[in-house]
Amino acid sequence: MSIILLGSRLTYDVNHRTDFLLKIAAASTPHQQISNEQLTFDPPVDVQECQVGEDGNRLHRIVVDPCQLRINYQATATLQPITEAVGNVGETPAASIPPDVLTYMNPSRYCESDMFARFALEEFCQLAPGFTRVKSICDWVFEHLDYTPGSTNATTTATDVLLQRTGVCRDYAHLTISLCRGVGIPARYVAGYAVDLQPPDYHGFVEAFLDGHWYLFDPTRLSETTGKVRIGVGRDAADVALATLTAGSFAI
Amino acid sequence: MSIILLGSRLTYDVNHRTDFLLKIAAASTPHQQISNEQLTFDPPVDVQECQVGEDGNRLHRIVVDPCQLRINYQATATLQPITEAVGNVGETPAASIPPDVLTYMNPSRYCESDMFARFALEEFCQLAPGFTRVKSICDWVFEHLDYTPGSTNATTTATDVLLQRTGVCRDYAHLTISLCRGVGIPARYVAGYAVDLQPPDYHGFVEAFLDGHWYLFDPTRLSETTGKVRIGVGRDAADVALATLTAGSFAI
Amino acid sequence: MSIILLGSRLTYDVNHRTDFLLKIAAASTPHQQISNEQLTFDPPVDVQECQVGEDGNRLHRIVVDPCQLRINYQATATLQPITEAVGNVGETPAASIPPDVLTYMNPSRYCESDMFARFALEEFCQLAPGFTRVKSICDWVFEHLDYTPGSTNATTTATDVLLQRTGVCRDYAHLTISLCRGVGIPARYVAGYAVDLQPPDYHGFVEAFLDGHWYLFDPTRLSETTGKVRIGVGRDAADVALATLTAGSFAI
Amino acid sequence: MSIILLGSRLTYDVNHRTDFLLKIAAASTPHQQISNEQLTFDPPVDVQECQVGEDGNRLHRIVVDPCQLRINYQATATLQPITEAVGNVGETPAASIPPDVLTYMNPSRYCESDMFARFALEEFCQLAPGFTRVKSICDWVFEHLDYTPGSTNATTTATDVLLQRTGVCRDYAHLTISLCRGVGIPARYVAGYAVDLQPPDYHGFVEAFLDGHWYLFDPTRLSETTGKVRIGVGRDAADVALATLTAGSFAI
Repeated sequence: MSIILLGSRLTYDVNHRTDFLLKIAAASTPHQQISNEQLTFDPPVDVQECQVGEDGNRLHRIVVDPCQLRINYQATATLQPITEAVGNVGETPAASIPPDVLTYMNPSRYCESDMFARFALEEFCQLAPGFTRVKSICDWVFEHLDYTPGSTNATTTATDVLLQRTGVCRDYAHLTISLCRGVGIPARYVAGYAVDLQPPDYHGFVEAFLDGHWYLFDPTRLSETTGKVRIGVGRDAADVALATLTAGSFAI
Repeated sequence: MSIILLGSRLTYDVNHRTDFLLKIAAASTPHQQISNEQLTFDPPVDVQECQVGEDGNRLHRIVVDPCQLRINYQATATLQPITEAVGNVGETPAASIPPDVLTYMNPSRYCESDMFARFALEEFCQLAPGFTRVKSICDWVFEHLDYTPGSTNATTTATDVLLQRTGVCRDYAHLTISLCRGVGIPARYVAGYAVDLQPPDYHGFVEAFLDGHWYLFDPTRLSETTGKVRIGVGRDAADVALATLTAGSFAI
Repeated sequence: MSIILLGSRLTYDVNHRTDFLLKIAAASTPHQQISNEQLTFDPPVDVQECQVGEDGNRLHRIVVDPCQLRINYQATATLQPITEAVGNVGETPAASIPPDVLTYMNPSRYCESDMFARFALEEFCQLAPGFTRVKSICDWVFEHLDYTPGSTNATTTATDVLLQRTGVCRDYAHLTISLCRGVGIPARYVAGYAVDLQPPDYHGFVEAFLDGHWYLFDPTRLSETTGKVRIGVGRDAADVALATLTAGSFAI
Repeated sequence: MSIILLGSRLTYDVNHRTDFLLKIAAASTPHQQISNEQLTFDPPVDVQECQVGEDGNRLHRIVVDPCQLRINYQATATLQPITEAVGNVGETPAASIPPDVLTYMNPSRYCESDMFARFALEEFCQLAPGFTRVKSICDWVFEHLDYTPGSTNATTTATDVLLQRTGVCRDYAHLTISLCRGVGIPARYVAGYAVDLQPPDYHGFVEAFLDGHWYLFDPTRLSETTGKVRIGVGRDAADVALATLTAGSFAI
């Protein structure tokens, strides 16, 4: 069990009345309890909180009139680590993958796994199925990419990354996810906090579905499992953007 | 109320033991009742049926040993048409969109709405919000695309279609969905049967979320609402592929 | 006739022995005479100068050992403006386009005119051929793009720009060139200096082939014809990169 | 010395008065003499022949009124094979590459060598420079692609091919060219006839610039050097399209 203190500050210059959809609060899951949580806005605004889906993703919505908005989030996360003999974890046969997991085998906005499934199979199909195969995919991604802040942007996808061989945590995750899907392993994106980064920061990593459970992987090797707190999961980063802004009037 | 007789036949040459995930059975929804349903396989196989998600999507899974496989589906659909004064239907304010609908505002594999949101806003933001705006988007798509079988393939996305200005029903739907999302309207893909096509065929169309409900649109103008039977909905065609095949051994 | 004083300074940190291929010297053409030219390097290096092609493009090559390299270029350009009644300039019929101009009708790295030729035709084919049609294309580009430094990078192409609707001079030029080629007008990229920018800077603009001659266009409207000095022409920016560096050993 | 009889037949249904630009006649080069050449049109049309560039590329232009047009080409090619001890051929140092060859180091429409230069370097930079390195690139392409007619189309580029791992001769050539450029070797596309294919057909292959000369490579391994007759060379297939059609009126 580990106890982690979290915090983040965001500032926005709001020029028009704008709807904010925030995904910054840590998730409540069987493995992660959240306490002492504070989400404050300066100036104060009415906040609507909701739960999205079955995986503990949370959402805060606010409507903000023109101002400089400061968002402050703090919480304590208590993590119950899973300690398993992972070397023995195999893959779930295609016919047994639960229906609600199947969506994580489909290609998505940033993980166009259909575009290079042949490459994924050529490179990774000879490996023994299971945890070690996903580990090998993570190793391949770590070894073939250069971690280069600024080398990618909000439209960069896994195919771009496979070609250009550089990226940041989000790109490492997207490529890993796509390669897993390419060999038939459901995989999804996890947005979270990594408190063991210097400085602590938002982080993106990967979960793969093996033997009936989701297992965590981080192809960047930048943060330990014990330093990671989950915000939410999705097919890729498109589903767990920190903040989505919609100007009420769509003024351009 | 209309009653529709459905049928489809598919044939596969199966060379390796393969998992099939079929999305060909019509959905059961408050507006669509299915009766006299028959799904038969020649040679016979064990079939596992499951429900996916909250929208009535159904799934049939089979594992097939090498053979020539014939799949035959038949059913009767009873449709309860929604008869509303659609001219008055407005848009749901961003702050009130239900959490489980928000996913349909995100960009997806074939609907990269983030790539041309600026274009969508320039072209459609001045229009009055609501049903008529979605109608205008459908009209724009109908007028600017040529319906050209063979001009697109399984990797063609909405940006490709916006550039090349040709496509088939699936491409019309993807572009329409992306433009809706671009102006802040949740939109999703519907796979179904269109019995009023000559010959009757699978068809892809669009639902947009307006004033708390999903409304059906068909930018191809090829089929009437009363001729459409729903199989399933998803973010785009990646979620409702007719058949997804996974070879057990991943032999290439 | 106008007389323009030019100057540019570039600095490189060279870590390995590297071949530089520089395209920074102003071109010598019938309409542009260069005098008082100085190209100096600190530390000094051997320079090889060559002429490339028939259009006055010049090239300087140096091989540089590890150092901090400063490149200083100065020259005086005397421009002989073409003063024609451009309103009357028509297009060259396809059958009469000189063979060496045909290359500027083909799609190229950053000007994939084949990808949206249908759009170009739909939008611009009804217009009267000639100078005014190219002018209309430039107006369309100016009106539909936002000049946004930082919104594009070295891999951004005309299709990206047509979708995202933002860019800088190079992107404006690529889109204009592609639209011209799309309606059958040869068009090419011009790299140069714009001394009437604040501050003076490198600039990218367009030439279209009309009635047997190349005519200059600038869809950004940022610089006057009388403020532009040509460095070189090419199919697109790939051909006239300021500096191309090749490390002798290809060390990564 | 080998003597080859060539022939090709093309048929077009011409609905509007159209300019044809044909690149089907074999090139005249020091290594390839053409005799007994016949280019006939049914119905007959006026033909304008021209030479393009310095490499022997030829062009035939015709203007055709509505009709069914048959184009018949026949010739005898006498090839003077180059018989060199290719194992010893090295690469031309960057500083010594002739100015008119430099264009073949730039990325082009179908050979976006800039997009995966890092991959090219990682994979091929450790190899000894020269003929054997280009040979290794060809081997890599042959081994990693599947020759699959129908898997690509007119917009498929080298990056698509690197991802999807399938293609035809044109795609093999584009990827090989891009990888060569990626490690600093000038490379270009050759369109030609391969009389030793079954049946004889148009073919696309590669030339790389090594030690001051252009050397021929065919990563498909489908045709011998002695069975290849050159039509023309270009940066990629965009420059040597068999036929380019321009409708005089741009009617859509």
